Amino acid sequence: MSEGGALTRWKVVCAYDGTHFSGWQSQTNGLGIQDCIEARMTELFKQPIRIHGSGRTDAGVHANGQVFHCDADWGHGTAKLKRALAIGLPATIQIKTVASVSADFHARFSACGKRYVYRMVEGDADPFTRPYVWRFERADRLDLEAMQSAANILRGTHDFTALSANNGAEVLDAVRTIPRLDLTVKGRALKFVFEADGFLYKMVRSLVGALVAVGEGRLTPADLERLIAGRKRTKDVPTAPAHGLFLDRVFYPPQVRSP
Amino acid sequence: MSEGGALTRWKVVCAYDGTHFSGWQSQTNGLGIQDCIEARMTELFKQPIRIHGSGRTDAGVHANGQVFHCDADWGHGTAKLKRALAIGLPATIQIKTVASVSADFHARFSACGKRYVYRMVEGDADPFTRPYVWRFERADRLDLEAMQSAANILRGTHDFTALSANNGAEVLDAVRTIPRLDLTVKGRALKFVFEADGFLYKMVRSLVGALVAVGEGRLTPADLERLIAGRKRTKDVPTAPAHGLFLDRVFYPPQVRSP
Repeated sequence: MSEGGALTRWKVVCAYDGTHFSGWQSQTNGLGIQDCIEARMTELFKQPIRIHGSGRTDAGVHANGQVFHCDADWGHGTAKLKRALAIGLPATIQIKTVASVSADFHARFSACGKRYVYRMVEGDADPFTRPYVWRFERADRLDLEAMQSAANILRGTHDFTALSANNGAEVLDAVRTIPRLDLTVKGRALKFVFEADGFLYKMVRSLVGALVAVGEGRLTPADLERLIAGRKRTKDVPTAPAHGLFLDRVFYPPQVRSP
Repeated sequence: MSEGGALTRWKVVCAYDGTHFSGWQSQTNGLGIQDCIEARMTELFKQPIRIHGSGRTDAGVHANGQVFHCDADWGHGTAKLKRALAIGLPATIQIKTVASVSADFHARFSACGKRYVYRMVEGDADPFTRPYVWRFERADRLDLEAMQSAANILRGTHDFTALSANNGAEVLDAVRTIPRLDLTVKGRALKFVFEADGFLYKMVRSLVGALVAVGEGRLTPADLERLIAGRKRTKDVPTAPAHGLFLDRVFYPPQVRSP
């Protein structure tokens, strides 16, 4: 593509404030984070560059560690590439690391797992954290013990059809393994950490919705077990709002991290 | 002003993200936080309500605890007033507390001191903290020991003419007392805390600018002493950017806190 230069595959880790984006991918009604980064790449390399994310994030969802790869000819080292990319991006997108990787690395297909973090607060939040937490107001507090019991049920390997949404794409296999599901409480703030080999569409927000429904007493842990076994999405499971959700990290096997 | 109702003086503590405001007061080129709150008050009380802040904050400056007072007739208790105010305000303004106070309380004239916090980071910051810190990039790190020496000089009672700006208003007395000036470092993050009986126009940002100039080696602590004694603003003192600054708290004597 460029004169004489060899194409390098780059693995880039980025963070973004998803508040004002239509999600990772562009939609007819808004700008995607991917578009923004591709526009900067194209400007920098003076030719169209396509980037490939580890997966999409919905409108309003944030990321601490989204990963994408792209192929480009750059002879000035990774530090300068990181800096050059950052200069042309809005303050809502941060390039965290840039690394050259082997040509068989693929941000989506090489991934072996992901971590999502979801933040809630019972009651009010200050203007500086409000865009990043689900503010949850009710007269009595959530039953945390019941929520921990529900978390124990959700951990492990299940068919998560009942706790995801249909995005039009056919899902042949909705079985996923959640080795880690932590719920920690600090005052009025709740933090959920989910690690799994993969996540279905709207799965994390459905998991949070289900856990909160249990905390409110609208679902029992036993109901949750029945729901999962039923393998059908019902109205009993609410979807937690997007703006409390962070794609925290994408995991890759060690061998594909550097060439 | 209202039929039969007695006017109550309200003391309100609020927080705001100053990023997209023209400052506490409206300017010809933008919306002030005060306008926003007054518009909501006027809507709620169905008559023009004027609010009186503890002081102005500049465009881009944030607040954790700005205080204002106003007089209004409200018979439904403070909890409901807090909630009613909050409903009509943008997410960038938070009503933290509402209290009825004696009629001689004045947000500005009753104040006996203020606390400001300034945040810096050496290098990059993620998109979630970037709007609230001064990102400071240079090859070598700041000389923190020299900065602590400079902080020791600034603490106490001085004429701060050299470390403030002229805003057109005549300042008869530029002597202020800073009992507290803390500089704490956590990794690449620096946090300054300033408490004083009062602050001159752009004084905190000038103090931070001077401390950073010392950290960079552009000024020595001895230069700083000479500057203060000279009582004249010079180009040697840079003004730190607004977006790292928070009005953290306004102090009042205990007796005026409740009627």
